[in-house]
Amino acid sequence: MTPLVSIIMGSTSDLPIMEKAANRLDALGIPFEILALSAHRTPKEVEAFATTAKERGVKVIIGAAGMAAHLCGVIASMTSIPVIGVPIKASLEGVDALYSIVQMPPGIPVATVGINAAENAALLAVQMMATSDEELYRRLEAYKESLKDKVVKANQELSQLQYKHKTN
Amino acid sequence: MTPLVSIIMGSTSDLPIMEKAANRLDALGIPFEILALSAHRTPKEVEAFATTAKERGVKVIIGAAGMAAHLCGVIASMTSIPVIGVPIKASLEGVDALYSIVQMPPGIPVATVGINAAENAALLAVQMMATSDEELYRRLEAYKESLKDKVVKANQELSQLQYKHKTN
Amino acid sequence: MTPLVSIIMGSTSDLPIMEKAANRLDALGIPFEILALSAHRTPKEVEAFATTAKERGVKVIIGAAGMAAHLCGVIASMTSIPVIGVPIKASLEGVDALYSIVQMPPGIPVATVGINAAENAALLAVQMMATSDEELYRRLEAYKESLKDKVVKANQELSQLQYKHKTN
Amino acid sequence: MTPLVSIIMGSTSDLPIMEKAANRLDALGIPFEILALSAHRTPKEVEAFATTAKERGVKVIIGAAGMAAHLCGVIASMTSIPVIGVPIKASLEGVDALYSIVQMPPGIPVATVGINAAENAALLAVQMMATSDEELYRRLEAYKESLKDKVVKANQELSQLQYKHKTN
Amino acid sequence: MTPLVSIIMGSTSDLPIMEKAANRLDALGIPFEILALSAHRTPKEVEAFATTAKERGVKVIIGAAGMAAHLCGVIASMTSIPVIGVPIKASLEGVDALYSIVQMPPGIPVATVGINAAENAALLAVQMMATSDEELYRRLEAYKESLKDKVVKANQELSQLQYKHKTN
Amino acid sequence: MTPLVSIIMGSTSDLPIMEKAANRLDALGIPFEILALSAHRTPKEVEAFATTAKERGVKVIIGAAGMAAHLCGVIASMTSIPVIGVPIKASLEGVDALYSIVQMPPGIPVATVGINAAENAALLAVQMMATSDEELYRRLEAYKESLKDKVVKANQELSQLQYKHKTN
Amino acid sequence: MTPLVSIIMGSTSDLPIMEKAANRLDALGIPFEILALSAHRTPKEVEAFATTAKERGVKVIIGAAGMAAHLCGVIASMTSIPVIGVPIKASLEGVDALYSIVQMPPGIPVATVGINAAENAALLAVQMMATSDEELYRRLEAYKESLKDKVVKANQELSQLQYKHKTN
Amino acid sequence: MTPLVSIIMGSTSDLPIMEKAANRLDALGIPFEILALSAHRTPKEVEAFATTAKERGVKVIIGAAGMAAHLCGVIASMTSIPVIGVPIKASLEGVDALYSIVQMPPGIPVATVGINAAENAALLAVQMMATSDEELYRRLEAYKESLKDKVVKANQELSQLQYKHKTN
Repeated sequence: MTPLVSIIMGSTSDLPIMEKAANRLDALGIPFEILALSAHRTPKEVEAFATTAKERGVKVIIGAAGMAAHLCGVIASMTSIPVIGVPIKASLEGVDALYSIVQMPPGIPVATVGINAAENAALLAVQMMATSDEELYRRLEAYKESLKDKVVKANQELSQLQYKHKTN
Repeated sequence: MTPLVSIIMGSTSDLPIMEKAANRLDALGIPFEILALSAHRTPKEVEAFATTAKERGVKVIIGAAGMAAHLCGVIASMTSIPVIGVPIKASLEGVDALYSIVQMPPGIPVATVGINAAENAALLAVQMMATSDEELYRRLEAYKESLKDKVVKANQELSQLQYKHKTN
Repeated sequence: MTPLVSIIMGSTSDLPIMEKAANRLDALGIPFEILALSAHRTPKEVEAFATTAKERGVKVIIGAAGMAAHLCGVIASMTSIPVIGVPIKASLEGVDALYSIVQMPPGIPVATVGINAAENAALLAVQMMATSDEELYRRLEAYKESLKDKVVKANQELSQLQYKHKTN
Repeated sequence: MTPLVSIIMGSTSDLPIMEKAANRLDALGIPFEILALSAHRTPKEVEAFATTAKERGVKVIIGAAGMAAHLCGVIASMTSIPVIGVPIKASLEGVDALYSIVQMPPGIPVATVGINAAENAALLAVQMMATSDEELYRRLEAYKESLKDKVVKANQELSQLQYKHKTN
Repeated sequence: MTPLVSIIMGSTSDLPIMEKAANRLDALGIPFEILALSAHRTPKEVEAFATTAKERGVKVIIGAAGMAAHLCGVIASMTSIPVIGVPIKASLEGVDALYSIVQMPPGIPVATVGINAAENAALLAVQMMATSDEELYRRLEAYKESLKDKVVKANQELSQLQYKHKTN
Repeated sequence: MTPLVSIIMGSTSDLPIMEKAANRLDALGIPFEILALSAHRTPKEVEAFATTAKERGVKVIIGAAGMAAHLCGVIASMTSIPVIGVPIKASLEGVDALYSIVQMPPGIPVATVGINAAENAALLAVQMMATSDEELYRRLEAYKESLKDKVVKANQELSQLQYKHKTN
Repeated sequence: MTPLVSIIMGSTSDLPIMEKAANRLDALGIPFEILALSAHRTPKEVEAFATTAKERGVKVIIGAAGMAAHLCGVIASMTSIPVIGVPIKASLEGVDALYSIVQMPPGIPVATVGINAAENAALLAVQMMATSDEELYRRLEAYKESLKDKVVKANQELSQLQYKHKTN
Repeated sequence: MTPLVSIIMGSTSDLPIMEKAANRLDALGIPFEILALSAHRTPKEVEAFATTAKERGVKVIIGAAGMAAHLCGVIASMTSIPVIGVPIKASLEGVDALYSIVQMPPGIPVATVGINAAENAALLAVQMMATSDEELYRRLEAYKESLKDKVVKANQELSQLQYKHKTN
């Protein structure tokens, strides 16, 4: 089965965060691959990956990096496949990674999500593919519907609270 | 002709920045619409827009907002169409808008581009649609190729510089 | 008993912080309700809450949210009841939530208190209602008087300290 | 006529910003006063103001200050009237004033609005008083309704834009 | 014995930090007092302290406060005795306290030391008094000399390190 | 006449800011000198200055520097005379200079004032000397009294403002 | 003549800043080249440059970039020639570029100088080459000596200032 | 054996970080020394070190310091040997040290590496010396090659992951 989404990370130390992306893609039934690639340690492998992803059938790339996070921008410079960037909090509260990923120059965008927001990266990847896939769109809508359950459950817990002047 | 991309901004004061998005979409041949909508001043109109965009055929939404920029997140909460957020620099160097757009909670991503990066928002929108459109992908590759021209021209200028020890 | 103050939070994970608001309202004898609502996960429920709060007799709304904290601004856009915002520290030291709540555009204010400052949100809510309620004002003055006790107690502890050159 | 709202600023250099608060109160028909008081230069006058405001009939106090902005917190420590703080941008993009106003310790809240957000301070003051005044509430709702006009006008301007692929 | 230096803090929670100031004053033989005073909870006591310190013989005041740290500025507004401010790290890495203390308006300086830098506050207080006291100046010089011991000891430890290519 | 205060700056580009310190010292009748010294360009001259200031009769040193502002800390490491640091805004809104001056390690304080706050540096220098000089203390009190004039004048201006609902 | 230093910038808009590097190299007699290369627009040309610089005889590379400044890190990943990074202030006061350049992961350093500090980049390049070139070292020492002239001239200007209490 | 690189730190508390620099130099076969020196506590020793390093044969100096980190700049002002600065994270996430080291004035560069990036400091030192030493350059290239191993190992781990839709 051809992967539609590539999840790229610099090292397995990012895996505890990025597995939320893998889990979400898995739950939504999207074939994906997970690879370790470093813009700084393996520049040639990055180039090989980025320049062949299109012909391999990859639709969206998710890159995760911390500190001076160049991985996403470097990949984006070598392909027109959309690249989603996940800033990893490794130093400076993640602000260095956020700036290094989001502040791309004109011509080469990276679709940046929040710091450590791996699950949102997966959802965004599926939203991109769902622009031409109604069945996928319906899966996303069903997922969105399910988000309310957390809030319903929260209200049940809150209704248990005992205060003299609480009214609900 | 049905618009494929909606550009949404809070007021026409954002137009000088956002017209770069319009220009890029226009140059790439993408039908689009431009609307003014405010998450805070016209919440009902935002809701009407967000909940009907899918059936109107909109594929990608680009939202631009400054300060406590809620527009993109609010739209994203009401549709599964991908929403691209452009943080507008109106105060605090644009950091308030960047944080308000990119730091979305799990479940509701906004694809954030750089501060005032309207052109990149347009390119990202086209990249998303090109995941299922080879012709569009080729247009993006051609555009990417054209980016090199600026650099070539820059080198010509730099080669004119006269220094005693300059060698190229 | 009709609640006069609504405490709204995105999930029960904010409860350890927000229960200080509940405790303070309870101690000051103010009827209140606590609800979970998410601007992003349950936008329709937020709208239903915000547009009916006035007729239900709610006088002040306290909203708590972290990250790209849109809850308070979204509620404030749908009602003229004063909305107090509590930025929750969930990332970036709480600065993202602070900016997302306080930097509202002209026309739609949110009365922002400090990061995680739930108790101050409750006091502010009571101060608002006390603008037309002398008995409530007196309760606040009595509470204010009681704040000095902590300082008196601190001085007693400090007077115990033993140093060769300490004089008090 | 007794003033219901006091606008306090450190010097007349803040007047170009704070007159938006005065204009909004004036437009909403609220009697108000404008005074210059400095927490650091006239501490006794600040104390005299703060401790007598209640008996003079003041319902809400709006304080504006920049840099190490202590004015609002100092007033709030001496009265239980709600104090709204407007951080003035005089240095550090206004972040010093914002932190000095919003990060109050438990027990003494200041209702903080955005940097230079004088008009929102006035609206918030009226919202507070409208918790017990239905006629005032209706005026606020009418004002809120009028905010949409700006957006309508913006859309008219945007509809004039000419692009080859623009569809609305 | 009359205290020459007053150490003021908002609560005893600051004592673990501020006792370094007390220890240093004690070691240098300076009579001092430690008091708890809150700009926000006990404004009258702060005023009473500040306006009588001079006649009581206090030469320098050290104030410690966190968050929206108004204590030092408020005291400085009421006396011409030099006030040293110690920003306490209670939130936002201490930046809120630093800005609230150091960014004083023209006319009312606060001599600010580093975040949590209680010992430096004590040394600075003694330096101020030593401008007219040669004996005190000599004690400071002796203390300064002793600072080198730490570095000497560090070098001894470093000389123990074993590396193949280490040469010292 | 022996200078009691030394004002040190890195270059004459800082003079427009630092002349406020000179003016204030002049107005308060304090003999002073102004010198250009650079921690980085003239380290030996800085050392010569710092190690002889005491014997020359200097009581307080005011140092002004921007960017990686080492001047104040370097001087403070070589003398026990109190050093007042003025962070100059040359880049990064002055935050780099502020941090470089205020965050001194234990043992070597620098009395930091606000960004560009030259006048406050002069006042602080006089406050330090006034710890042993009653006449000087009275001059400071008179100066402090005069600060109120600005506020009085501001109130006169504000009383001229015409609004329909203005009451004072 | 073979260039010893390569100055690389993304576009000629950086030239007004980077010509200070060229001027300094020229003045110190170092053969150099200036090239425009963009990590994002011309990744292949960057690779060609980086992988051949060594054999062409380049000793040090100076890269200048703003925003998400990947150029220096990308070059550094492809060569063991030392790379000096100059963060260009194009947005966010230059902090985004600073973080993107300096926060490199273990294994791939970039020698970062201050924001817009092109002249320092040139000096650092020469210092690196002077580690094996005594004649070059002497030129640097002579340059360093000349830095004092500015300070001497500043003192001459300062000595002209007329104040009643100025003593030097 | 003469040390080619000097590692300087303020105290042995920085040793756990700086030993990574020592280890890397050791592994690359570079003779080095480790010394404790404090810009503020031992200014004369710093001067003695800096002014004699050249004649002792030192080629590169690595300085590590936290907070208001003056050590590197002070050394750089006294020698033309290249100085590499390692900002130590001791407060404010290390931003104070970073600014204090990197923002040097024109004329006196410090080659700054990332916060706590001791290993990169060592590599940079070797890169500087390798500008005139082909054998050293080859060692660096071999080290760079070895960096890929981590990535290869990461990919092996990632290939073990079991997901229903994972494809590689």
